[in-house]
Amino acid sequence: MARNKHPEETVDLILDVSLRLFMEKGYEHTSIQDIINNLGGLSKGAIYHHFKSKEDILVAVTDRITAESNKMLADICSRPDLNGKEKLKAIFKESISRPVQDDIFTVAPDFRNNPKLLFSLLHDTIENVAPNYVLPIMKQGVCDGSIKTDYPEQLGELILLVANVWMNPMIFGDSREESYCKIRIFSQMLQGLGLDIIDEEMSQRLQELAAIYQKSKSEE
Amino acid sequence: MARNKHPEETVDLILDVSLRLFMEKGYEHTSIQDIINNLGGLSKGAIYHHFKSKEDILVAVTDRITAESNKMLADICSRPDLNGKEKLKAIFKESISRPVQDDIFTVAPDFRNNPKLLFSLLHDTIENVAPNYVLPIMKQGVCDGSIKTDYPEQLGELILLVANVWMNPMIFGDSREESYCKIRIFSQMLQGLGLDIIDEEMSQRLQELAAIYQKSKSEE
Repeated sequence: MARNKHPEETVDLILDVSLRLFMEKGYEHTSIQDIINNLGGLSKGAIYHHFKSKEDILVAVTDRITAESNKMLADICSRPDLNGKEKLKAIFKESISRPVQDDIFTVAPDFRNNPKLLFSLLHDTIENVAPNYVLPIMKQGVCDGSIKTDYPEQLGELILLVANVWMNPMIFGDSREESYCKIRIFSQMLQGLGLDIIDEEMSQRLQELAAIYQKSKSEE
Repeated sequence: MARNKHPEETVDLILDVSLRLFMEKGYEHTSIQDIINNLGGLSKGAIYHHFKSKEDILVAVTDRITAESNKMLADICSRPDLNGKEKLKAIFKESISRPVQDDIFTVAPDFRNNPKLLFSLLHDTIENVAPNYVLPIMKQGVCDGSIKTDYPEQLGELILLVANVWMNPMIFGDSREESYCKIRIFSQMLQGLGLDIIDEEMSQRLQELAAIYQKSKSEE
């Protein structure tokens, strides 16, 4: 086969096709061969040139979604019309509201059997999102008086971890009802820390995501 | 070599020797050969009969400590003199106070490069400690009026995860100062949930464990 002069396009194509298949068939039921069959003549060698395994492809699919998510976070961080607490609320709302979340929860990788994926989520949360997006927002909130804390770094990290990990139905396999209980406790915890940022719409949306995930799991 | 008629004793010996070496030399700097050299003539084959790898030995060492920890939890659960909130405080206090914690923090496995170990901790927290020890305590607290919540299961799980994971200096590599900030936020979070269970002694002890871990890491 002739050497590909546009490796980024090949990678993008592999990721597009993989995401679609993961959504249609579920991650567990998609094989590397399925992906190859949908790549219009790309060889097995070409795909293994870019990715070592199906899990690697999943990580890359997730990374691409993360890059889009980072852009959303950066946009909110730079909004001049919101104070710190309002920005914190906006990033939670936007994180769960985006339609791409429906796709992610339908692809529904099982984090509980996927240490590498859970690590990549934890790593992104602690090393990227917490210091680069949430910390500046917490500091702004302390300055403008909308957030009261002596430890903005630790408070931001804690809230983000609870939201991204404990509240994540993909990690804990929560039912709609369990998600409801969790968001009630999360809301209460945040209120105790002076942060009344969870509203009914966010609670509904989280339960919806839990239900999407449950449905996709039960169909596997 | 003659077949060993007491496999439990062999396993116990391997674990005793391994724990001592992990403490003296650090986990990373202990090889399977070091362990064999300290086993008084036990062959490489004998050790591999029981454990596939050094990481397997570490998991077994951790499991043995977990078993001791479960006994401590069961003892507190069955104390007739404490209400629910007092039991919750007692398990936190006891968990960090036990002298064996000095050993664990000196052995200081690096969870951040050890997905299997982090998974085993998460699994034990969610599948064992939360439902078997913390949930009964939360329910008792709701009954005796010392804990106020409509969601004892989720509240217990959240508190336990934050304590065992986010507050764990072995996972986050916190300095003494970072540990101090975290325990301040944790205490504030608990107070907001009606649980004033962190005292100065616990705060001091957690900082001490963070310092032990930092010291042992810097000596590696």
